[in-house]
Amino acid sequence: MADGPVVIFVDFANHDFSAERTEALKPMAEEIGRAPGFLWKIWTEDRQAGRAGGVYLFSSRALAETYVEAHRLRLAKRGVHEMVAEYRSINATLSAINHAPVGQLPSGQ
Amino acid sequence: MADGPVVIFVDFANHDFSAERTEALKPMAEEIGRAPGFLWKIWTEDRQAGRAGGVYLFSSRALAETYVEAHRLRLAKRGVHEMVAEYRSINATLSAINHAPVGQLPSGQ
Repeated sequence: MADGPVVIFVDFANHDFSAERTEALKPMAEEIGRAPGFLWKIWTEDRQAGRAGGVYLFSSRALAETYVEAHRLRLAKRGVHEMVAEYRSINATLSAINHAPVGQLPSGQ
Repeated sequence: MADGPVVIFVDFANHDFSAERTEALKPMAEEIGRAPGFLWKIWTEDRQAGRAGGVYLFSSRALAETYVEAHRLRLAKRGVHEMVAEYRSINATLSAINHAPVGQLPSGQ
């Protein structure tokens, strides 16, 4: 099984999309940015469906899993007890053709 | 509702992860790259679960939807009749803190 960066799609129920929520989450974003293996996060929202979460790039599956479990606990403390986390590995060759923001990966991944 | 770039998470059943499949899909990647509003795609795989797909960035929801419907037809012709497509808008302020590869977005999105 190829090792290397992984994408995670994280998603949970959320109904507050206010500017105040964004402001309140800035320290959490700073903290997330310091997680081992963290490369980037797109903060995602579906206001109509009441879902929030993110798409992340981590340097390895193991570090992504460590992060997700910590994030699950952090969300549980905020009352969020259902969180979807989908892990995916990356096809480097095809992603390179499509300008994927994943850095230089060895091909064959 | 804020307009602007959207992320899509696309996912479907797939059981061929060979180098030959990657080679055969290069022309499709080139074609995808020419879709109106397309910004990038990470080609994703879950070999254990037998899932493939991608995370995409499109310049607008409308153009993303046009692409997804075309992609659904393209996959159906290849025998894939079940495709998940999750659309998400982007929180620009928090994404900027986490180095998200989404270009410069107006804040408030």
